[in-house]
Order: sequence, then structure tokens, then C-alpha cells
Amino acid sequence: MFTINFNDKTTLYEQLYHRIRTDIESGFLGQNEKLPSKRKLAKHLQISISTVQNAYEQLLAEGYIISKEKKGYYVCDEPVFAGRKIIIPPPLVITEPQAESPQFDLKTNAVDTEHFPYSVWSRLMRESMRENPTVLLHSLHPQGNYDLRVEIANYLQAFRDVNITPEQIILGAGIEYIIGLITELLPVAFFAYENPGYMKIRKILESRRMDAVAVPVDNNGLIVEKLAQTGATAVFVTASNHFPTGAVMGVGRRRQLIEWAEQSDERYIIEDDFNSEFRFVLKPIPALQSLDTSEKVIYINSFAQTLAPSLRMAYAVLPETLLQRYREKLMFYSCTVSQFEQLTLKRFLQGGYYERHLGRMKTVYRNRQKIFIDGLSPIIENLILDGQKAGLHLQIKSAKLTECELVKLANDKGVRVYPFSDFYAVPPPETHTVALGFAGCGDDELREVAGRLCAAWE
Amino acid sequence: MFTINFNDKTTLYEQLYHRIRTDIESGFLGQNEKLPSKRKLAKHLQISISTVQNAYEQLLAEGYIISKEKKGYYVCDEPVFAGRKIIIPPPLVITEPQAESPQFDLKTNAVDTEHFPYSVWSRLMRESMRENPTVLLHSLHPQGNYDLRVEIANYLQAFRDVNITPEQIILGAGIEYIIGLITELLPVAFFAYENPGYMKIRKILESRRMDAVAVPVDNNGLIVEKLAQTGATAVFVTASNHFPTGAVMGVGRRRQLIEWAEQSDERYIIEDDFNSEFRFVLKPIPALQSLDTSEKVIYINSFAQTLAPSLRMAYAVLPETLLQRYREKLMFYSCTVSQFEQLTLKRFLQGGYYERHLGRMKTVYRNRQKIFIDGLSPIIENLILDGQKAGLHLQIKSAKLTECELVKLANDKGVRVYPFSDFYAVPPPETHTVALGFAGCGDDELREVAGRLCAAWE
Repeated sequence: MFTINFNDKTTLYEQLYHRIRTDIESGFLGQNEKLPSKRKLAKHLQISISTVQNAYEQLLAEGYIISKEKKGYYVCDEPVFAGRKIIIPPPLVITEPQAESPQFDLKTNAVDTEHFPYSVWSRLMRESMRENPTVLLHSLHPQGNYDLRVEIANYLQAFRDVNITPEQIILGAGIEYIIGLITELLPVAFFAYENPGYMKIRKILESRRMDAVAVPVDNNGLIVEKLAQTGATAVFVTASNHFPTGAVMGVGRRRQLIEWAEQSDERYIIEDDFNSEFRFVLKPIPALQSLDTSEKVIYINSFAQTLAPSLRMAYAVLPETLLQRYREKLMFYSCTVSQFEQLTLKRFLQGGYYERHLGRMKTVYRNRQKIFIDGLSPIIENLILDGQKAGLHLQIKSAKLTECELVKLANDKGVRVYPFSDFYAVPPPETHTVALGFAGCGDDELREVAGRLCAAWE
Repeated sequence: MFTINFNDKTTLYEQLYHRIRTDIESGFLGQNEKLPSKRKLAKHLQISISTVQNAYEQLLAEGYIISKEKKGYYVCDEPVFAGRKIIIPPPLVITEPQAESPQFDLKTNAVDTEHFPYSVWSRLMRESMRENPTVLLHSLHPQGNYDLRVEIANYLQAFRDVNITPEQIILGAGIEYIIGLITELLPVAFFAYENPGYMKIRKILESRRMDAVAVPVDNNGLIVEKLAQTGATAVFVTASNHFPTGAVMGVGRRRQLIEWAEQSDERYIIEDDFNSEFRFVLKPIPALQSLDTSEKVIYINSFAQTLAPSLRMAYAVLPETLLQRYREKLMFYSCTVSQFEQLTLKRFLQGGYYERHLGRMKTVYRNRQKIFIDGLSPIIENLILDGQKAGLHLQIKSAKLTECELVKLANDKGVRVYPFSDFYAVPPPETHTVALGFAGCGDDELREVAGRLCAAWE
């Protein structure tokens, strides 16, 4: 009936289990058929009773056979893929979509990789590994490590005029996660977002089957009258450095926006303070949150562009009313940021490394921007350059060329630039602007890129 | 008009900016009021013109003043919080809810912290820090590092009979994140979950405003006839080791479940293979996914219990049809797992450390379970013990005592045990069972805990 291969490296009981299982699956052993007793089968195969016992136990556990008291073992009385051919499908070989890569990619979310503080970070990671094992491996607070939140609160107070306590901060694995969490937090979920703007917000809202509406932006930021017409209950804004135009929402418009929110308990403003750290003229524009005396602004930001996108660390700062709601509704979610990295970032902030790193990167990026603008100077007469005051990309607007032409001409020279229509929910009929992220290229590369763009667009 | 403090450490232009801003906010400078010329103010204050220039520029950027060509600078013509008292609210001191902590907490999701491979992990982290900076800091694949996915595919093939390719794997920061992603992935979202079961699934579905229904479980796992009556299009199951009862779904029931899914294109099974690694008798129960020849099973699992909950690493394995959908709809989401830790885990798997660690932890946990059961033996006559075959918790059922009584008596002795009603969507009128997680306690602690429980429940 069965043959056992004593040279096979799988155990004897597993061989026997597999053999009987195959016979059941193939129908060779029919429903309700009696199996030989353990003793009889052991004797027949010249193996121990316990080997047979183990094989039968496994088959019992998986439901292939049943045991009837004082009668013995039987094949189960339900069809077990009988008649169906069990084919293990061959591994799918699915090629992952690869982005075509031009020589230079001026994407807006690139960062420098040269100046990352590798050795400090590495040392602090090692120190974090020596923390109390329970802290390290176990007890993640849903909002994130408390001491890290203390450091973030101090930083926000000092640099963004954001006056809060660590209890209001919730850490999450990236700004997209944080945005998702907010959609679950707010009592009514009809969201507005800036147009043009950061279109991932729209994608997240659509993916989560949320009502969402685009609101136009002028050179003073989101137009509050238009927002008021939509019926939306919450709005995402980049008040201090609008993405992608770089517009600053002035204090009058800010007041208007906060007053819009104050008109209903359900209304909230989500301030995405993306890239406000990198302002190259005078002092940073204060966060909208700093004007909020009525608990209407949720402040969100991340360490993606100031440290590295591959560290998944972002956070939201909730006003008190929403904090209570978070605790009632969402505190069951575990924190999504690795504890190791939270502890490392905590040390990085405590040691003053973050402040120094930011200062250094501001200088690095200011210089890069200058090199890039200098390199583009031969064609600046024909093109309008914008976005110099802040952020890690520039905008180029052409009177003659459309964005498609700008993109194509640059691409022909091996440079990828980004059409402004990418940043629109509904693109205007014709745009003439492209975005050029300069953060990911070194100084020499930027000189090269600028030369190529001059040749492309002259 | 203004006084400048030359000893203040903030820059002169910032002092001037703040002073003018305060005057505008307080109404001291009215709407449309003309400001002194830069030259005049500089002379008056005996500071340089460029200092005044900078202050005016900052006020312009923030919208407090406007510039009229050939006329000079004016306060903006909109009210700027005029008449509103700008009070920076005092920092909220909100105490974070603290769980009361009995001396010993037998929670079901605890893990051992003694045997974590600190030194290997630390070394591999250092090695990861030396990777190519672009790989390290920049280019996260949305599904996660490819080489890590190769390792996970190999592991699943070898240990869980799950026959897949790395292209089908999507990494995420914890099983909750992965569950959320799946709710966005499936075309129709009416979800069923096991009752009793892992109630976080229900919370996630409710938080995401999804339709969800509980389906009862018997000692053969989820009851498929009951599922079919609900109209749900997708179901979460723990087929190989039901949480929290430990029931194994037999092969007949598995076939029934897959056939249920095959009846409609919209139907899917999400197999949460939680804790299947820790089976203490014979060989592991194969994953349900291994029987799926019709692209109906999404396999999900994490490294939370096999490595550490504080490493936020979980994954889903998508059947090919859903993989296409993921690529069209959800690939815009950045991967939520830190790249550093992905690279470290990759090395951990490549070096064979994970397999060894699992083997060691199986022994550790088997011994702990034995110590615990031995310690409980004096009271086992009166109580029914279950859950020994797999997983990191046991169940104790009492004929006489209710779960409330069991919990309270244990608590009086400083031991927290978990009532089974916690695991129900709608708890049965009276349960007599509690769960005892033993993974988080050392051997000596378990002897102590067992002694206390004997005293509590004898």
C-alpha cells in the first residue's frame, strides 16, 4: 500500500502523512473509507506505531480523516477536492512596472543624499539598541514615544511658533498615513483640497471612498469664498508655502479661513506644513496653527524632506477637542513607526543634531538653488522663473512653449521636468509651467542640468 | 514710536517686525494706515535701512502690510484679528490615559524580550547603514524592498506551503495597516469577520466606515453556511490557528470556503496567518492559501510576534488579479516600512538568522507553556484547559465561575487575564472562559503566576 523512503530527508511520519493525504485528494481513498489500524500499518511498513500515530494525528488535525471511538480511523465524510486536480500553479513571473529613467530626474520630492548624517545616525541607532528591552520591543504608545513627542513639541515651539504639548502629537509612518488617520478622525468627512496642490491627498480621499472637492488657489493661497461654496467640512492647506506655487497665505486670508472653520463645530483646517523649513529669505513664515485660538487647526508635517523619505516619520498635532475624539475612537491603532527609529530620532533631536542638520541643509539647498538659477540665466529673459523664496523646486513659465513642449524638449536632453498639470485635479486647458526639483542633484550635476535645459529651451 | 533693544538676541529686523505686527494686530496701526518710509524710520531708530527693509519684507510676505508703487507701505486693508485678543493658550496639560498595571499581565499579544537577537540585529543595522545612499534614503518601492520580498517568498514557500513570487508581496507598517490597505483594494467592500475573533479587524472596518458583519465560528473554524447568508463579499479568517480558540479549519471546511469565494468575482478570502509559526505538536497546519487554485485568497502575516511588535513589519500576498488592481489604484502609496529596517530584515532572513530565531523561540515558548501548564495542574481537575497545540496563549474554562469571576479573582492576586467576551462582536450572554498569554513572562515568573492563579481559582 505505502512505500517509505528511508533515505528521504523529510521525517517518516511526514512522508506517510503526505502519501495518505494524496490518496484522499485523488479519490484513491474514498469518503468514509476505513484506514488500517495503527498497529497493522506499522507492522506492514516496518515502522514504529508512533510514526503512524503522528501521521494520523496530523491528518486528523487538518481534517482529512476522522476518528470514531472504538472503531478506528476513517476518511472524512465530505468531499476533499475529490475530482479536482490539485495543481500548484507555477510561480507567476510578473514584471514590476519600472519607471523609465532619464539621466536627470528633477522630481519635486527628491532630497539630498550626500549630507545625511550617517555616522551620527548610526551611532544613535546603536545607542537605541541598548535601551530597556521592554521599551525597545514591547510597549509602543499608540501616539508614539513620549520623549520623542516632547522633542517635537519643543522644536515646533521654537521654529514654527506652534504652541502645543507632547500629548497632542500623533506619530505615523509617513504623511499619507497621517492623512488617512485624519479622514477617520473627523466626525464629518467631506474634504476640500487645494487646486493646484498635492494630488496625493485627492488620491487618498478617493481611495478611501471619501467625498472630496478641489478648491482653487490664487497668489494668496486657497480662496476661502470658493471653499465656502463647496459645503466641505474640512480643508487641506499649505498656508506657509503653497505646493507647488510657493504662494504664502497672507494674514488676512488666514483670518478668513479660520473664521470659515469657526462657523461650524464640524469644520476643521488641516495645515500641511510641508517644506516650510526651507525658506531662503528672511525668517520662516509662521504656521497658520499659531493664529488658531479656537481649536480648529490640525497641524501635520513629516521628516521626509528634512531627513530622508525612507525614514517613515510624520506627525499630526491635534487640537484638544479632536484629541479626546482620537482617544475614544482611534487609540486602538498601534503606532506605525518603528520603535527603534523613534528612539534614534529622539536622540537626534535631544542632541541638537536635527537643528544643526537643518541649518546645514538650508545652506546646501540655498547654494544649489543659486547654482541652478545662475546656470539658467542665459534663458531667463524668455522664461519666467518663480519659487526662489522657499522650497526645493523652482517653477519655469514660458510665454510661448506649452508645458508639454517644455517637458518634451527637456526630456530630449535627458532631463525630466514635471508639468504643472500633474498638480491639478482638473488641469486648466493649457498650462505653460513646469516644476524643477533641484534637491536631489549635486552642485556639478545642477550645472550640467542647467546647461542642458538652456540648450533645450533657448 | 519704536524702541529697539540692542541687547536682545533676536535680530533687529525681527524685533521691528514683531513690534509692527503687534501694533497692527492690536489696532494701534489701523487699516490702510501709511507706514513711515524705510529711510525715515531707519534714521529715527538709528538702524540701517536694510534692517527696516527686511522687517517690511517679512510683513509683506505674511500679508500684514502692502506696498503701493511710488506711494510706500500701508497696513493691509483687511481686518487682521483687529479687536480679537490674541491669546496664546497655555500649553494643555493632558494626562495620557495610563493602563492600570497589575503585577503580571497575561495579554495575548505579548512576546518574549529576553531572546531577541540584539547583537545580530545591531550588527545588521550597521551593515545596512553602509548601503548605497540612494537605496538607503530615496527609492522606496511602494511594495517594499525587492530583495526582502524574495526572502519572504522563499520563507513562505518553505514553511507555509505558500507558493508565490516576490512581485505578489506588499509590505506595510503592521497588520492593521495591511488590513486597511485591503479595504481600499477590494472592488466591493462588505466584510465579514470571525466571531469570536481578532476584534481589531472590526474596529478598523468601523473606523473606515465600511460595512462589516460578524460570522460565528465553531470548533472547525468559521461556519461557511452562516457566511453565505450575510451577503458579505470578503471574509477575514484565521484558518490554521483560529484566534482566540485555536480551532483548525479542516480541509473540508476549507474547500467549502474557497467554493464560496469562487461563486462570484467580487468575493475574496483574507487569510490572517497570525501565529501559525508557533505550533507545538507535529508539523504546522498548511496555510489555506496553499489550497487556493482560483486566485481567491489574500494571505497576510507579520513579524510582530515572531520578532518584535515594535518593528512595524507586516505583509500581504495578493493573487494576480488583485495585484493588477493594486498597481492601478494603490501604487501611489509610499511604502510605510522604514527602508533601514527593511534592509536589516533582509539581511536577517538571508543569513538564516530568522529561521534559527524561530526554531529557538518555538523551544522557548514550548517550555514556557509546559512550565505554565505544570504549575496550573493542581486546579486543572476543576477547570478545562485548552489551546495547548499552538499559539502563545492558553484558554481556561470553568464550569462554575463566570469569566468576570475568573478575571476578578486573578486580579486580586495581581494577575491580569483576559475575558473571552473581549473577543466577541456581540458577546454571548455568559462566558466562562479566559485567555492567558504566557509569552511575555519568563520561566520563573510563570511559576509564580501559575501559583497565584491556583490560589485564586482553587
